Amino acid sequence: MKLPHVAIVGATGAVGVEMLLCLEQRNFQLGELTLLASARSAGKKMKFRGEEIVVKELTHDAFEGIDIALFSAGGGISLEFAPSAAAAGAVVIDNSSAFRMEEGVPLVVPEINPEAAKDRPKGIIANPNCTTIISLMALAPLHEKFVLKSVIASSYQAVSGSGAQGIIELEEQVKAIATGQEFTPRVYPRQIAFNVIPQVDSFTDNGYTKEEMKMANEGRKILGHDTLKVSCTCVRVPVYRSHSVSITAQFEQEPELDKARAAYDGKAGVHVVDDPSQMIFPVPLDTTGKDDCLVGRIRKSLVLDNALDIWVVGDQVRKGAALNAVQIAEIL
Amino acid sequence: MKLPHVAIVGATGAVGVEMLLCLEQRNFQLGELTLLASARSAGKKMKFRGEEIVVKELTHDAFEGIDIALFSAGGGISLEFAPSAAAAGAVVIDNSSAFRMEEGVPLVVPEINPEAAKDRPKGIIANPNCTTIISLMALAPLHEKFVLKSVIASSYQAVSGSGAQGIIELEEQVKAIATGQEFTPRVYPRQIAFNVIPQVDSFTDNGYTKEEMKMANEGRKILGHDTLKVSCTCVRVPVYRSHSVSITAQFEQEPELDKARAAYDGKAGVHVVDDPSQMIFPVPLDTTGKDDCLVGRIRKSLVLDNALDIWVVGDQVRKGAALNAVQIAEIL
Repeated sequence: MKLPHVAIVGATGAVGVEMLLCLEQRNFQLGELTLLASARSAGKKMKFRGEEIVVKELTHDAFEGIDIALFSAGGGISLEFAPSAAAAGAVVIDNSSAFRMEEGVPLVVPEINPEAAKDRPKGIIANPNCTTIISLMALAPLHEKFVLKSVIASSYQAVSGSGAQGIIELEEQVKAIATGQEFTPRVYPRQIAFNVIPQVDSFTDNGYTKEEMKMANEGRKILGHDTLKVSCTCVRVPVYRSHSVSITAQFEQEPELDKARAAYDGKAGVHVVDDPSQMIFPVPLDTTGKDDCLVGRIRKSLVLDNALDIWVVGDQVRKGAALNAVQIAEIL
Repeated sequence: MKLPHVAIVGATGAVGVEMLLCLEQRNFQLGELTLLASARSAGKKMKFRGEEIVVKELTHDAFEGIDIALFSAGGGISLEFAPSAAAAGAVVIDNSSAFRMEEGVPLVVPEINPEAAKDRPKGIIANPNCTTIISLMALAPLHEKFVLKSVIASSYQAVSGSGAQGIIELEEQVKAIATGQEFTPRVYPRQIAFNVIPQVDSFTDNGYTKEEMKMANEGRKILGHDTLKVSCTCVRVPVYRSHSVSITAQFEQEPELDKARAAYDGKAGVHVVDDPSQMIFPVPLDTTGKDDCLVGRIRKSLVLDNALDIWVVGDQVRKGAALNAVQIAEIL
């Protein structure tokens, strides 16, 4: 069998760099690797398995001979170039939100709905929103046992979700405050250092942000659960890389606590870290640079019947983006 | 009328200092002011209205002639000394959790249940938990119009909630990280800089923390609403002074959005800051050092009937503690 020729589109971005790292760390079997980026970044050299690869400019005819194209360069680039890549015969795995809700485009979390990746009439597979992936890693094992009815969530989202610029903005603001310098927020509408911002992405007509609606719409599509109700408040916090989500999940069947904990036994990519008596619970720093999501604070809701309150953390750049995309490539 | 002799117990702590500031800024009408603290802090001088006051040692006979004693020196000190103060004829306003749920001790937010302060058979009035006060400032006007059934909340709590030591720990960790120094968390079980910690106060048997149960128990007592259901996840975030709370509130009657916003018209101590089209929503820095709580992100829940998702911020040291205590003293 010929090993696939893989391309990363947006190779020099925060997620692109992490995709390269995931391919290397997971010893991904590939024949050739092409790195693509904007004209501005073309010519840069990036290391992969000890060798230097020169980044090429992204053009419509850059996809000749490519089998798998991992896109992470924003929705605009995906809309413009993913169809060219698919037409050239590549399977596109797209990290942007451009195609996620489109009919005929599977939306895949490999631990949850790997079978969906098989049927891709448009040659495109979408990688879900980061907060959605991390939340579903906690919810899917419970859904399998107790059948989800509704999800109420509040997120604590890292600045890596805004790409390298978000990380730089937090670093710069912390420095400016320490030295008494003035600064003007560029990436976020308000200061993010020593502050939290209850807004991620732009607002929609119902008062929810696009990010909040992604949790609802993408969650339903990935779980194949049209009647699932989701209400979410997405909040940016001054954390560098890992997202956390506080979730109240209601089920059709009673989720007894021991059965809920056992639901994670043997599941790939998610672990329970939950022992209040020993002050053990997961925090975002625990998952930074790691593959697996961690679930804790599992307890019965004091408000809703058949419901649990839980807490999940996961690396936004990794399981929330790059790793999930590479895992999709692995199941192809 | 003779102006009251006021004492602050724990005058040198974070909340004690802020109580002094509130008394001065609000031009509180007092005849004499006594500052009390541990033997370690006795002899320190603190400024009040341009004059220096020497801090005295807290003893059981320190309350002779005092009319109002504002306590903020932790639950142990309150349990030991509040009865002596009350026996000496002072009205105790206690910021600790020691007496909050005790029968015969009113638990008061002056904008919500000022009448409760009148009947105080034990001579003690309790100041509620900070997250509870800030949440109720947002919920009480809605409860008045639509009648609360349940509250599901996730908090974003500032380090000031752990007193001056919490603030110092965040500052020190940020500095240590900037200079590549090692550090060991002392106040919090995990690093708080660039992290969030889903634990505030110790755990109880049901898996919820004491802080989370305060929201439930104190909320019911303040609103006089025994059947109110509350489920809460309290999370510490690297913010210095203001708490934020993401709340899903369900009501008996339908909370139409325009009526919900109008519920805050003319209410003291709380304002609506909510215009998504202009990217306007409240963040914790907006309330730092300020008296009023701010409510935004008001929208219909996508999960529960007759429910709203809202976001509230308020200064933890001020409305969450010192200001509320001084306001109780004002209504006496």
